[in-house]
Amino acid sequence: MFKETFQRYLTMIEQTLAQLPWDEDSLNESMYYSLIGGGKRIRPVLALASAEAVGGNPETVLQAALAIELIHTYSLIHDDLPAMDNDDYRRGRLSNHKVFGEAQAILAGDALLTYAFEILANLELGQPERELRVIREVALAAGKDGMVGGQVADIAGEGKALSLNEIEEIHKAKTGAILTVSARLGGILAGGTEEQIEALTDYAQALGLAFQIKDDILDIVGDSETLGKPAGSDIRQGKSTYVSLLGLEGAGHQLHAQILKAQAAIKPLGERASFLNELAFYIEERKH
Amino acid sequence: MFKETFQRYLTMIEQTLAQLPWDEDSLNESMYYSLIGGGKRIRPVLALASAEAVGGNPETVLQAALAIELIHTYSLIHDDLPAMDNDDYRRGRLSNHKVFGEAQAILAGDALLTYAFEILANLELGQPERELRVIREVALAAGKDGMVGGQVADIAGEGKALSLNEIEEIHKAKTGAILTVSARLGGILAGGTEEQIEALTDYAQALGLAFQIKDDILDIVGDSETLGKPAGSDIRQGKSTYVSLLGLEGAGHQLHAQILKAQAAIKPLGERASFLNELAFYIEERKH
Repeated sequence: MFKETFQRYLTMIEQTLAQLPWDEDSLNESMYYSLIGGGKRIRPVLALASAEAVGGNPETVLQAALAIELIHTYSLIHDDLPAMDNDDYRRGRLSNHKVFGEAQAILAGDALLTYAFEILANLELGQPERELRVIREVALAAGKDGMVGGQVADIAGEGKALSLNEIEEIHKAKTGAILTVSARLGGILAGGTEEQIEALTDYAQALGLAFQIKDDILDIVGDSETLGKPAGSDIRQGKSTYVSLLGLEGAGHQLHAQILKAQAAIKPLGERASFLNELAFYIEERKH
Repeated sequence: MFKETFQRYLTMIEQTLAQLPWDEDSLNESMYYSLIGGGKRIRPVLALASAEAVGGNPETVLQAALAIELIHTYSLIHDDLPAMDNDDYRRGRLSNHKVFGEAQAILAGDALLTYAFEILANLELGQPERELRVIREVALAAGKDGMVGGQVADIAGEGKALSLNEIEEIHKAKTGAILTVSARLGGILAGGTEEQIEALTDYAQALGLAFQIKDDILDIVGDSETLGKPAGSDIRQGKSTYVSLLGLEGAGHQLHAQILKAQAAIKPLGERASFLNELAFYIEERKH
């Protein structure tokens, strides 16, 4: 059932992505190149599943879910730039700037971020207050107090010995904020109650940390081919991670604790949240 | 009267800018550094004046005007990057990446763009449909079909012999779209009629071209100190400009024609548009 639902969400997302209009120029081509780069689509899936978990129709949040994927994609393009992580590959393909050049990669990222807000302002669900709230929350999660701020803190922490608390703060901002707003916007646009939206928030925050801990573990135990990127890069970059601080076993325990926390948070949502419940296990067991 | 009004607008803008909350970290510092870098504030001034030109209160559009200035500032930070124009100076000060490093300059730009949409989603004017329309129009003007698209076309055109038509298309996207939406959002948020908003649109499009032609002229006849950047850089970069295609005198005629066009467009707005009328002369005669 979990696999079928996951596949249903993915099909909806890929179809909506394929229907986005693109002009035939190199900028559009470079934006599209990274967008169809075969990501896990965790964020839009989370948005659709959250809508269903509060009893709404996932179709309602599809466009907003897409906007989140655009924002995620822009952040990866900018992260890969020579001035940032200087990664030549992303998901087993050449990174955007290796194909289109650095200038255009910067601009493709800028355009994807802007396009995301264009899509969010075009939802036309007949609920303008809710739509404005979603734009507000997405901007907050993506900006200086969320994803971008976390990225700056992450760069500033490179080569330094960070505490577990500091690592957690960085991840909450860098990856957690966008994951959390993905779940929240699903709940908000589908007309969930504030209590339901809070439950989704707690779930997504725990899931986000679990996701990051798993990333740290995979960097050690994963193989480069399955990951689509070189394993062991955290060690080479001198990064403090859950594994470097807690060891593999300790990190595994932390991971499982977050999974249980996530699942406890959505208990009140009942049977409709069973996909989210399974998704937590999926995050714990993923191989890439 | 024109100078007093201009000063009144500038004071409103600088005061609102000064009231924006900033955290005490290097990301906030780098965003603020470029934002207070002493620009001409033409875009927010245009927004405030457009609100008054349709009989509205400029206070109403102040926050939105600020958002536009944030977007303009982000675009300058990214334009100056080594991978783009590689400018060490901007308005007589070191460019953002020369002070904060390339990685953080990219992120400061990203955060300013995102912050702009946060502000636009927080207007709380009690007119959610209008507010959504403004976000939609700003995103369109700033993105792949507007400013970013124009920037890509501009880079692609470097060193090529462009026609006047091609130059105009680039400028309409690269600088014209944001200038135009500045005027439009002033009209929209102040409750102008569609006819008034159209008049402002025609005005701003002509003004935008005039602005660009004047830029091309100043690059030849201006001195570096007054400009705050090296004069003659268009020639050194092998750029096609209004001056390279029409000569100085021809460019001057084109400039004047656009000024007259701008002024004709706002005739229907009457006396309340007298500042915009004067602003056109100001653009024609500016020294930097």
